[in-house]
Amino acid sequence: MAAAAMANASGRVLSQPVTFVTGNAKKLEEVRTILGQSVPFKSLKLDLPELQGEPEEISKEKARLAAAQVNGPVLVEDTCLCFNALKGLPGPYIKWFLQKIGHEGLNNLLMAYDDKSAYALCAFSFAVGPGCEPVTFMGKTMGKIVPARGPNDFGWDPIFQPDGYEQTYAEMPKEEKNKISHRFKALDMVKSHFAEAGYTFQIDNV
Amino acid sequence: MAAAAMANASGRVLSQPVTFVTGNAKKLEEVRTILGQSVPFKSLKLDLPELQGEPEEISKEKARLAAAQVNGPVLVEDTCLCFNALKGLPGPYIKWFLQKIGHEGLNNLLMAYDDKSAYALCAFSFAVGPGCEPVTFMGKTMGKIVPARGPNDFGWDPIFQPDGYEQTYAEMPKEEKNKISHRFKALDMVKSHFAEAGYTFQIDNV
Repeated sequence: MAAAAMANASGRVLSQPVTFVTGNAKKLEEVRTILGQSVPFKSLKLDLPELQGEPEEISKEKARLAAAQVNGPVLVEDTCLCFNALKGLPGPYIKWFLQKIGHEGLNNLLMAYDDKSAYALCAFSFAVGPGCEPVTFMGKTMGKIVPARGPNDFGWDPIFQPDGYEQTYAEMPKEEKNKISHRFKALDMVKSHFAEAGYTFQIDNV
Repeated sequence: MAAAAMANASGRVLSQPVTFVTGNAKKLEEVRTILGQSVPFKSLKLDLPELQGEPEEISKEKARLAAAQVNGPVLVEDTCLCFNALKGLPGPYIKWFLQKIGHEGLNNLLMAYDDKSAYALCAFSFAVGPGCEPVTFMGKTMGKIVPARGPNDFGWDPIFQPDGYEQTYAEMPKEEKNKISHRFKALDMVKSHFAEAGYTFQIDNV
């Protein structure tokens, strides 16, 4: 992996591979697939506090906390599901709503509204190290909230139908979903950032 | 204030007055009124992260973080508004829901349900110092969510009608509300704890 050191010597020198903070093997695989071999990566499950606030701020603060713990470059990821009629909520709290009231309960939150539109939001934040201001990449996919359809093995995917599609995230083939998903869009920005920023990795043994 | 040092020498010795973490003068006044002169107090506005999770855990973690920053005994407070039909949500996230969708939006969340019952929850956590496990006191007042009635100057008070009353929190005289409120109940437990625990304050100048 040391061979992955990037060539542009004008960029920032990083003495460690980037730590992608996750305990989720599926997410790690997705990050590896999209970022390819361009960036030296390792993954780590950290017990970080989950914060309240606006999605971008939550993501940045998580990156700051992670960089301090890891004492090196980190990449963190957060996902929100935002209902327009609820001004972006449940947003960062979607995990709790899904856990407690399920797909039907989430649909019920919009009973009072004709507007069922929503967006899936993914935020990745990258911090070069402790004390460095993180850079955030937000991927957004517009759609609407519908009664659950499709396999029930991945969070709120069965109730989110992206605009321009007749299928929910859950019903779409994985390759199809990954072309338009909020996570893909955010990761694509991460990839461009790494391609342009010219970080140099000085890593002897990874 | 040094005269307030408590008599029971068998209790834990605290070298500082208790820091009540708040930036809210009204809450400080309420704490002073209810706890009286039994406990040496000061207040401090700290920039603590707001956490996601279950109410009791949020409160304990806030106390841990505050005790580490203050390096002494701390008392922290959090409030939740929990809808039974939503399995306790918005709960600790009520602040964001109130801010973004207001009283009408909060009522709308329950449009799909006949069950409008709810409870107001107040959590105080007290930590003796850094590294000490906090003690948590939860006050709970049962009621229901109603269209807003009464003065609109204190959060979600206009939409919460406690059980056994015809008035909302907002419509009730302050003295009346303070006899039954979630915050009063929790503070009363804090008061009992201090009376029973026998902390000794060794404070020369406060």
